[in-house]
Amino acid sequence: MVQHKPRKYKSLSKPRFDLSTAEKTGAYVVGVDIGGSNLRIALADRKGSSLGKWATSTKETASPQVVISLIHKGMHQLLRQTAVQRSSLRAIAVGAPGVTDRDTGVVFATSYLRGWKNVPLAAMLQAELQLPAVVENDVKLAAIGEHWAGAAQGIPNFVFLAIGTGIAAGIFVNGHLVDGRDWIAGEVGYLIVPGTRETPSKAGEPGPLESAIGGEGVRQQWLASCPSDGGATAQDLTATGIFYHALAGNPKAMKILDRSARILAYAVHNISAVLNPSLFVLGGGVGMNGPLIAATERILECYTQPSRPQIVASALGQDAQLMGAIRLALDKAESRKHLQPAHYRS
Amino acid sequence: MVQHKPRKYKSLSKPRFDLSTAEKTGAYVVGVDIGGSNLRIALADRKGSSLGKWATSTKETASPQVVISLIHKGMHQLLRQTAVQRSSLRAIAVGAPGVTDRDTGVVFATSYLRGWKNVPLAAMLQAELQLPAVVENDVKLAAIGEHWAGAAQGIPNFVFLAIGTGIAAGIFVNGHLVDGRDWIAGEVGYLIVPGTRETPSKAGEPGPLESAIGGEGVRQQWLASCPSDGGATAQDLTATGIFYHALAGNPKAMKILDRSARILAYAVHNISAVLNPSLFVLGGGVGMNGPLIAATERILECYTQPSRPQIVASALGQDAQLMGAIRLALDKAESRKHLQPAHYRS
Repeated sequence: MVQHKPRKYKSLSKPRFDLSTAEKTGAYVVGVDIGGSNLRIALADRKGSSLGKWATSTKETASPQVVISLIHKGMHQLLRQTAVQRSSLRAIAVGAPGVTDRDTGVVFATSYLRGWKNVPLAAMLQAELQLPAVVENDVKLAAIGEHWAGAAQGIPNFVFLAIGTGIAAGIFVNGHLVDGRDWIAGEVGYLIVPGTRETPSKAGEPGPLESAIGGEGVRQQWLASCPSDGGATAQDLTATGIFYHALAGNPKAMKILDRSARILAYAVHNISAVLNPSLFVLGGGVGMNGPLIAATERILECYTQPSRPQIVASALGQDAQLMGAIRLALDKAESRKHLQPAHYRS
Repeated sequence: MVQHKPRKYKSLSKPRFDLSTAEKTGAYVVGVDIGGSNLRIALADRKGSSLGKWATSTKETASPQVVISLIHKGMHQLLRQTAVQRSSLRAIAVGAPGVTDRDTGVVFATSYLRGWKNVPLAAMLQAELQLPAVVENDVKLAAIGEHWAGAAQGIPNFVFLAIGTGIAAGIFVNGHLVDGRDWIAGEVGYLIVPGTRETPSKAGEPGPLESAIGGEGVRQQWLASCPSDGGATAQDLTATGIFYHALAGNPKAMKILDRSARILAYAVHNISAVLNPSLFVLGGGVGMNGPLIAATERILECYTQPSRPQIVASALGQDAQLMGAIRLALDKAESRKHLQPAHYRS
């Protein structure tokens, strides 16, 4: 087994809760975000205030067993750090980067972590940690986080749109998450709009929208366009780097930003025509990019029919998933107590 | 006031309920579908069995007052025909062809009926008929009808997609209708996909998808293409007529059918990527067209990622709205009795 050196978790956004409200003799929950690159854990009290965070890399980690033992390790380290009793833990909620059945706690498939298939993650966690466990897709968790403590507080109809390497949405309708028939509602990386490819996607292949404006898609546009054009020849630029080059006036980058913003505007317009949400919250490294959001907003100004979509950047940033996990763990803990359904309640 | 000659309503689908179960001494409800061309009324018992139907034209009728007096007239005629006591009526539900606030019963806007604006239809009906009244958008009513007694029975996640002159969807998520922030969820006539126009729509103007494959859009394609091509020169063909010409081998019509099916397939694929519904139920004169459904299904066969959308023709046809109105009236009647929310319960 590869040894993992835990590193201190650096929160990007300020903690929203006063740590002094923590009651160390009370009930606590654990929230976990399993990403393709990092595993993050937070320990929180019953009000959702985070007492401590822990993180490690998942880059060399593939198997669910190893991930669970890392969660176990981090959880115990957090308990030690915070002097919280193990017996005070009430529930754990874990976000997985793939198609997840929240009811049974099975992760059907992931693109990252070398492709999990039908992993009964909640049952495995419950057996290993002896703690009520719930599992949810990471983008839906981020939507829960934004709804609870971020940009979409108190908004029953909104779309959290995550654009990083991949593209997916966590959708709230009437205060509840939309799951669909196969738990794959929000797979908007497959949208086909003018400017994306029109051909069908093969299994495992990025969808048309994702290929066009996901992080890798933008980078491919940069690499494919003439390197002599505009003087910017750096080959290792990320999508966000390219968009900031556009802001600085690089013509090649400006063309890519314009094209990306137009495609994103069509995607947002289309989702808006279907759902009429109050708000789009843009998350992910590409989605939160200032120049991209500004350029997309300029295009959407003209698209007022049937209603003009409102877009804002995520308020919680990289913490959105972890906040959603804490919220879901609190719900799980409450449902154990009150025999209420574990489904997230707005 | 223009005199309207009531005409016998001809049901297109067989009644689903046994008339012998009607209890004339019991409780009854009235369901109404206000269309741009016709007004239809049904009287039903508490099980939803229709005891009788009545219809008249709305072509010369614009004002809400005239429509309400027609409803009054039809309702009393049905009561006489069926020997049901006026005092046995418990509720009336009315479908309006426009943006409707189900909670307040206000019709914000209609494209037909010379453009209603902010008509408090439920309150007006309640005052005129002295009966608890509820009002809903007609396409959403059709979705309720299909969910209750049509092609989507027992399916919590499905999309009823109406394609006639206009295009709109009634969307069910987790067994409930999706309304959105402004009651305009499902305005999918505004979708932008490859093959539609990309320019923004002006207020009152048909949306890009509607302009491309709504009844009038298909007819415009026919009129715009070279009349000498293929030998079919009829200028007064409808969209469905054109599609049947395609089936008969007319090359010009085949081209229009292919193009329409591809655009419809992209729209269905996109809505499916957002919502992951179990089923699309196609309604409306164009949507129920056999050649169009078959051609669209052939294209969707290749679009299996993230999941292959399933499409079927409406089971209730022109009766979908009326069945939905009966269901909503029954819900309204029950909520009066049991103090339950009037929102449609699956």
